[in-house]
Amino acid sequence: MENDLIAGVNASRRPARRGIYLADIVDMLQEMPPARAASALAHMPDIRAVGVLDRPEFEAAPEILALLPVSRVIQLVTQMSDDRAADVLAAMGERAEPILAALTPGLRNTITSLIAWPADTAGGMMTTECVSISADATVAQTIEHIRTVERTRETVYSVFLVDDKNKLVATISLRRLITADPASPAIDLARDRDPITVSPEADREIVADLIRRHDLLALPVVDDEHHLLGIVTVDDVLDALVEEYTEDTQKFGGVEALDRPYLDTGMISMIRKRAGWLSVLFLSEMLTASAMQHFEMELQKAVVLTLFIPLIMSSGGNSGSQATSLIIRALALGQVKLGDWWRVALRELPTGIVLGGILGIVGFARVTLWQHLGLFDYGPHWQLVGITVAAALIGIVTFGSLAGSMLPFLLQRLGFDPASASAPFVATLVDVTGLVIYFTIALVILSGTLL
Amino acid sequence: MENDLIAGVNASRRPARRGIYLADIVDMLQEMPPARAASALAHMPDIRAVGVLDRPEFEAAPEILALLPVSRVIQLVTQMSDDRAADVLAAMGERAEPILAALTPGLRNTITSLIAWPADTAGGMMTTECVSISADATVAQTIEHIRTVERTRETVYSVFLVDDKNKLVATISLRRLITADPASPAIDLARDRDPITVSPEADREIVADLIRRHDLLALPVVDDEHHLLGIVTVDDVLDALVEEYTEDTQKFGGVEALDRPYLDTGMISMIRKRAGWLSVLFLSEMLTASAMQHFEMELQKAVVLTLFIPLIMSSGGNSGSQATSLIIRALALGQVKLGDWWRVALRELPTGIVLGGILGIVGFARVTLWQHLGLFDYGPHWQLVGITVAAALIGIVTFGSLAGSMLPFLLQRLGFDPASASAPFVATLVDVTGLVIYFTIALVILSGTLL
Repeated sequence: MENDLIAGVNASRRPARRGIYLADIVDMLQEMPPARAASALAHMPDIRAVGVLDRPEFEAAPEILALLPVSRVIQLVTQMSDDRAADVLAAMGERAEPILAALTPGLRNTITSLIAWPADTAGGMMTTECVSISADATVAQTIEHIRTVERTRETVYSVFLVDDKNKLVATISLRRLITADPASPAIDLARDRDPITVSPEADREIVADLIRRHDLLALPVVDDEHHLLGIVTVDDVLDALVEEYTEDTQKFGGVEALDRPYLDTGMISMIRKRAGWLSVLFLSEMLTASAMQHFEMELQKAVVLTLFIPLIMSSGGNSGSQATSLIIRALALGQVKLGDWWRVALRELPTGIVLGGILGIVGFARVTLWQHLGLFDYGPHWQLVGITVAAALIGIVTFGSLAGSMLPFLLQRLGFDPASASAPFVATLVDVTGLVIYFTIALVILSGTLL
Repeated sequence: MENDLIAGVNASRRPARRGIYLADIVDMLQEMPPARAASALAHMPDIRAVGVLDRPEFEAAPEILALLPVSRVIQLVTQMSDDRAADVLAAMGERAEPILAALTPGLRNTITSLIAWPADTAGGMMTTECVSISADATVAQTIEHIRTVERTRETVYSVFLVDDKNKLVATISLRRLITADPASPAIDLARDRDPITVSPEADREIVADLIRRHDLLALPVVDDEHHLLGIVTVDDVLDALVEEYTEDTQKFGGVEALDRPYLDTGMISMIRKRAGWLSVLFLSEMLTASAMQHFEMELQKAVVLTLFIPLIMSSGGNSGSQATSLIIRALALGQVKLGDWWRVALRELPTGIVLGGILGIVGFARVTLWQHLGLFDYGPHWQLVGITVAAALIGIVTFGSLAGSMLPFLLQRLGFDPASASAPFVATLVDVTGLVIYFTIALVILSGTLL
């Protein structure tokens, strides 16, 4: 329950709270057993039940609607916003068929065409319930039209002027309409540029970016011939952004994105979402055992080298994880393009060398200090051991920074989401190479003394 | 330049593009040398220059304004939205003083009071340019008032009814106003509940959550006595969310959040942002070297144990990173509260055991397979080595899942941002303990044979 949040923010100044917010009812219904929630929903006044069902965060809606009589569901679905109704009915699968069959043909067509678009595209996010009017209308006619249709439209703050073939001509805002001369043509209020539009196939990240860039309340979705199909509203974009970010964080942590909140995800499903990546990483990381086996002789001769393996390898993974997180966001925000990979590489190379150098100095100091303080004896060649550790750190941190920054580019180039470049993925990539770098440097520096 | 994006989306159907978008001008100005951008801005028509300056993504604005004559800056600042003007002048530091001094006293007071709030609070995000009117007004009076003030208000779609002491009484929407009977009192349009409000100290995450939860276009900011201070609009929240995500991703990757886009961040600043955390992690990870030194005798006797160190430790780090990313988001979305820590622990414990068991089986199979195929000789006690590896994996993955899921709770409890629980931080935490778990299990299982 997120009630605490609102209560927390306002508690000091609102001792007696009036009324109840739709968002709170959603929370309450989702905490009830589905059968009780269905009965509660059945007895609510229509306006409240529809308001609750229209909330995208009401994830239990399909399950609860399936428990209500079809006649009641029809009543509610008919009053819901069409994009949300399409999402809910799509999630009901086969159970939606008797409901779809009983809808009016017009609404059924609208909803089935909305269901056809994937949920994370502009088509899947849009509603057809927007205000559109002929481009010939006057300001007064447009305002009168808004008054008539207001109740059934998701937003009336953006008005879309269309020609006689329903092609989008211009977008105007209600704030300009109410301040304009009622007798003048509405189209005069459109600014001297084409309306910002998006195609129904566009990914939700592109939709979010356009709405954010141009401070829109609604973005019209048009087909190839510029026919107006619907609009995506800013509140849907906010929800999509939050969902997108949750998925990206989970991916970056090396988990397949969860479909439901953490505590509602079943144990089996939770294990399945995590075991996949964990096993893939484990199998790849097995290469480290192979690399170590390859250097078994050196390990036998100089056990002192093994003491620094976790330290050196983790530094490579950490620097890689830093570079990856920076590049994933820079790509997502469009601050860096695919073609910029070499500019990034040219920055990461010196950055990695300097960062590795800093850690190298600290590492060498540690060996020297422990040796002099008598905390540990690294043997007669302790200076050479220290130099090996320092040189390996420079090599591995540089490699980590380069590999971590290039991986998101590579994934994007191959058509994957750059956000799939998880921290564990990068660490694994760097670990295997890191071991080879460490032992190769050790062979060069310690050959003839320890090795 | 993000122009490609828009061009890409619409190219097919818009061969001859009319006009130019403000967001594109911002991009162009930011790519120019500051002196050229200043001269371009100086010669733009006021309406365009102000439109460009009002964009929060125009990060070079303070630098460019500092190059213009004060008289021109005054002209522009006076027309800018007051929240953005406050942000820009705050970023100009001392160079803003002559400008502030030359503003009208009213505007100067507004801007200095806005500058006083930290940028990531409701107070720092709000604008005072909202439509407020006496709670006694009729619908017709309210619409007439909106017509008069429209040009100078950030949004007119939410109207705030206040009493004679400027205390917020109700929020009504323009869409309800234009469909209502002009003679009726405006307050009749308010729904039967208190308006959603936020205090100026509230964090931007709370602001975003309230706006998203209640599908608001504007959220009123009120003080402890419920006086209306200003509003935060949905477009500012979209920008804040994207900025917040970028910072969180960078923190999760183990980098201090960058102030500027990746390619615009200077090399020195980039290294400073990364070296801090990298050094802290390196110093903590040094404990692994100490742990290994403690087990030096065992390492000498059974070099075969070292072969699996990277494999086992990385699995602990990976499972920890998975758990952390899940809990960070669950906490951010309010799906899990601080008091739920034990419910999470009770889920992570069995999850970790099962995940560790899966990896343990794969690990034991690997040792058996290599031994039988003659790829490597793990010695006469290879079964015991395999069992040690499997048992260590169960222990370490369980510990990783538990530690990774509890760390965000601990950080939140201590008043830190749970998003600071970076993947490298968790990996380091798990590495040191992981080594101790591994060698302890080895001592138990291999004592009398290898050890």
